Amino acid sequence: MYAETFKKLIEELKQLPGIGPKSAQRLAFYILQSSGKDIGQLVEAIKAAKEKLKHCSVCFNITDIDPCKICADESRDTSQLCVVGEPKDLMAIERSREYNGKYHVLGGLISPLDGVGPDNLRMKELIQRLNKGSHKEIILAISATTEGEATNIYLSRLLKPLGIKLTRLAYGLPIGADMDYADEATLSKALEGRREL
Amino acid sequence: MYAETFKKLIEELKQLPGIGPKSAQRLAFYILQSSGKDIGQLVEAIKAAKEKLKHCSVCFNITDIDPCKICADESRDTSQLCVVGEPKDLMAIERSREYNGKYHVLGGLISPLDGVGPDNLRMKELIQRLNKGSHKEIILAISATTEGEATNIYLSRLLKPLGIKLTRLAYGLPIGADMDYADEATLSKALEGRREL
Repeated sequence: MYAETFKKLIEELKQLPGIGPKSAQRLAFYILQSSGKDIGQLVEAIKAAKEKLKHCSVCFNITDIDPCKICADESRDTSQLCVVGEPKDLMAIERSREYNGKYHVLGGLISPLDGVGPDNLRMKELIQRLNKGSHKEIILAISATTEGEATNIYLSRLLKPLGIKLTRLAYGLPIGADMDYADEATLSKALEGRREL
Repeated sequence: MYAETFKKLIEELKQLPGIGPKSAQRLAFYILQSSGKDIGQLVEAIKAAKEKLKHCSVCFNITDIDPCKICADESRDTSQLCVVGEPKDLMAIERSREYNGKYHVLGGLISPLDGVGPDNLRMKELIQRLNKGSHKEIILAISATTEGEATNIYLSRLLKPLGIKLTRLAYGLPIGADMDYADEATLSKALEGRREL
């Protein structure tokens, strides 16, 4: 016996990823109990994000200025280009603080089951950038999934002819993981890519 | 290296209960990728909830009409009054479909540690209702927590002198669990096995 307006709010919240009926109800009560100011800020942040955020015209990362901060940053190494699937992958690399080059966001991975082929990704734009720039290395930072593997294979065939050094992220044990819990595929890759000490 | 507007959205989403940094990022990407219409509906639902929802002037449940649907429902038994802590507890009882009387929402439970005493709850309004009506039974449907126990004891002393049959939910509820998280069958059993105090 929910009030209509409350039911509607719960229904809308349930649409969000990872939010089930219980979480939706909890969020709805939180929204009711919060100050109008707090909720106003949340609503404004959502609206601002929808209005202002777009893709960078150079690397296709999410940005509110064009070109984005990374593309505009002159202290970054323009000879390295890191190719990622989604903006969240770019952000994951940035969090590692290990990389200081530029990026190219494909906008997804090749997935025939979902009807995503190379033509749906920013492959053409990648080739155009590589033809224009003077890159010394292309790093494929693509998830180690079936879709990622397909994308890596496609990119490898596409980019090899350009004669630029082409690398991909190492596969192996994740740091902090117990060897005992690693799956066969990971261990197999870790053995294959072993390094001399 | 997030865009400012994006960072702001993630910060706002992280304020929500049960939403950590990962979930906030996931929600933010979802919001960006969704259609403007879907997000507009979410924003409207939030605003409508903040604007229209208030407490019922009779039972203090959350409602968008006053008195609320339950108080206005003439098919419900006015001789039974179920006292709950929060609107979510009322909703949990309603989901069990075992109860057809009226409600009184206290607006919390007695919790000296949080500075919540009987005066902060709707005890006075409860007494006023009981004095005005012709109730045959008062059911205390209060979480089986320390705060709930304190509230039950207080209510028991407060209401016994009125000479109305006073019951509490059977301890079919697992001790220490929040009422909101009990499943329908457990709540149903708890209602069925209520004991006189």
